[in-house]
Amino acid sequence: MVFEGTIHHMLLLHLSDVDEANWALKFREALGDYPVVRRGDDFDPADIRYIFVWKPKPDAFDGLTNLKAVLSLGAGVDALLRHPKLPRDVPMVRFIDEDLSQKMTDYVVAQVTMHHRLFTRYQADQKARRWVQLYPPAASESVVGIMGMGVLGQHAAERLKALGFTLRSWSRSPRSVEGVEGFAGEAQFDAFLGGTDILVNLLPLTPETQGILNYETFSKLRRKLDGGPVVVNGARGGHQKEADIARALRDGTLGAASLDVFEVEPLPAESPLWDIPNCYITPHIAAISNERTGVSYFSRILKDHEAGKQLVNVVDFSRGY
Amino acid sequence: MVFEGTIHHMLLLHLSDVDEANWALKFREALGDYPVVRRGDDFDPADIRYIFVWKPKPDAFDGLTNLKAVLSLGAGVDALLRHPKLPRDVPMVRFIDEDLSQKMTDYVVAQVTMHHRLFTRYQADQKARRWVQLYPPAASESVVGIMGMGVLGQHAAERLKALGFTLRSWSRSPRSVEGVEGFAGEAQFDAFLGGTDILVNLLPLTPETQGILNYETFSKLRRKLDGGPVVVNGARGGHQKEADIARALRDGTLGAASLDVFEVEPLPAESPLWDIPNCYITPHIAAISNERTGVSYFSRILKDHEAGKQLVNVVDFSRGY
Ligand SMILES: NC(=O)c1ccc[n+]([C@@H]2O[C@H](COP(=O)([O-])OP(=O)(O)OC[C@H]3O[C@@H](n4cnc5c(N)ncnc54)[C@H](OP(=O)(O)O)[C@@H]3O)[C@@H](O)[C@H]2O)c1
Ligand SMILES: NC(=O)c1ccc[n+]([C@@H]2O[C@H](COP(=O)([O-])OP(=O)(O)OC[C@H]3O[C@@H](n4cnc5c(N)ncnc54)[C@H](OP(=O)(O)O)[C@@H]3O)[C@@H](O)[C@H]2O)c1
Repeated sequence: MVFEGTIHHMLLLHLSDVDEANWALKFREALGDYPVVRRGDDFDPADIRYIFVWKPKPDAFDGLTNLKAVLSLGAGVDALLRHPKLPRDVPMVRFIDEDLSQKMTDYVVAQVTMHHRLFTRYQADQKARRWVQLYPPAASESVVGIMGMGVLGQHAAERLKALGFTLRSWSRSPRSVEGVEGFAGEAQFDAFLGGTDILVNLLPLTPETQGILNYETFSKLRRKLDGGPVVVNGARGGHQKEADIARALRDGTLGAASLDVFEVEPLPAESPLWDIPNCYITPHIAAISNERTGVSYFSRILKDHEAGKQLVNVVDFSRGY
Repeated sequence: MVFEGTIHHMLLLHLSDVDEANWALKFREALGDYPVVRRGDDFDPADIRYIFVWKPKPDAFDGLTNLKAVLSLGAGVDALLRHPKLPRDVPMVRFIDEDLSQKMTDYVVAQVTMHHRLFTRYQADQKARRWVQLYPPAASESVVGIMGMGVLGQHAAERLKALGFTLRSWSRSPRSVEGVEGFAGEAQFDAFLGGTDILVNLLPLTPETQGILNYETFSKLRRKLDGGPVVVNGARGGHQKEADIARALRDGTLGAASLDVFEVEPLPAESPLWDIPNCYITPHIAAISNERTGVSYFSRILKDHEAGKQLVNVVDFSRGY
């Protein structure tokens, strides 16, 4: 029984393209008597304290006058930050999760090792029934350059290090991680690229990083690996200029590209990328947020915050990530 | 000046298909005044104390009556053991080397991660310009089964463990390695296979292991990975029955195979394997013995032995490896 005048605290779920009903079920199990509502339900928007979002509609935040935090199912918040009605005075918490990081690393390691072992070359030889014993370098002889040394970049770097690769990273602020040569900011970008054989993008999408995977960038990479340098993009389609990738793959500026994300998704059937033999396409499946760990992560954050603790993994609106 | 009656100690190089002259040069630098000779040189076979061999000719061991050790450039000694005139009373030392192990692990990790990430499926989708978001499992959800838990098997297991895979191994005698479930002997072979999604062969080729990668073996693997179980052979072509591999790849018993070695090498142009889209062929380049580390390894063994120390990494003729 609820008395008039009582302050109601509620979590609102607002998810598109995923099974919202099932998330609601799991959140209710995890949160006990803390009320969880969905869009169609009967509730007063002023009672909503937390909103858990994925691909929010234009009216998602309407009337949410007492919001304490926006909880983002996505690890990347670029799309959410572009929402015209996102309240700018409410903190936003993004998803950080070991399972998500592990899967992204699985993707990155598979692509890096495949290219390091000259996969494109051997596929061509196999098609031609050609037996030519070209020996790939040892892992330590190839330099993997990681753009973005945050949660995902550090996780991938750790595993690539265990495999013996030589590593360097590029971030906004200087980062010192053992066994990884750190480069930071625009001033050191060219030096970073100049010693990189395999470029891995794990940056967040911001106005500064938009379109960073372009022809000029590719032409600055080191040309040591047989076939040419390689790009792996596991972050966002907005980072890449696909016309430049197609050109660079065709003229040899790039030896190969592995792309999980695209300017427009699903990748349109008329994209030239589909047909380029040294372009390796996956349909944005590098790493998906897991329902089980997602509910446990955000339930803990909500409960902790209700108990007076500070929010963690809060997005910095001025940086854009 | 050498006086008559003096005992001469010499190293003989007998290498085919590699640059023997260069190996001789490097050995002379490393061994100082210990004499190094080649086949064409003028020497008394009775003076040869060590022979360093790769693909020896039929007369390779003729007249070597005072041999102290046979030094094998290859890590695998199966071909050498089949040499009809190999002296059975002289110890044989095989090559064990971090650089070689590292390169084999590079190969194994690249193949395992590529298949774990459902590469064959995504290549087919790309060809059909199909965007279907099938999510690969996390590394821990796939079981990699390593056949042969010796120098190479242990090296690969260590790196696959760091990547998060669930591991099991199969060897002749029981092996207990942390984080790897050990199976041993024929009696446990089926149980080993029954829980394996990706089978990696790093066995030596012996009468017992000949043809072990056959249709019956494949049909016992676990069918959990999307597309079917996978075989990676980095050991010897004699381990595999290629007709069985072709059949298993075509009827779905296997989802994919990565083969670095073949029954006949170079793989004949008429082999059906070249054309099977889920068969990934490399021309026996997984790992090559390195000249620099090879000379340093065998020079140390020779010097140590001359100084009275025991030989290391000696082949057990009765086991055949
Ligand atoms: N494809 C998929 O399935 C998938 C799944 C999950 C995530 N993602 C993407 O991966 C991105 C990265 O995630 P994360 O959790 O690792 O992010 P994070 O922890 O915020 O790390 C971001 C990193 O990028 C660096 N950075 C940001 N702006 C930069 C700039 N202008 N110049 C140089 N470096 C810059 C940061 O530098 P500082 O260290 O100096 O802050 C930091 O090292 C997400 O934003 C998301 O878009 C994709
Ligand atoms: N493709 C290439 O480029 C390349 C390069 C280098 C080497 N190789 C091949 O790789 C092979 C393995 O090398 P390695 O240095 O790791 O050998 P190793 O140290 O001798 O290890 C052999 C492993 O196989 C196990 N084994 C042997 N016979 C067995 C049987 N009948 N049943 C079950 N397990 C058996 C052994 O069991 P125990 O532990 O009980 O002894 C041991 O664990 C070499 O023989 C060579 O042919 C290929």
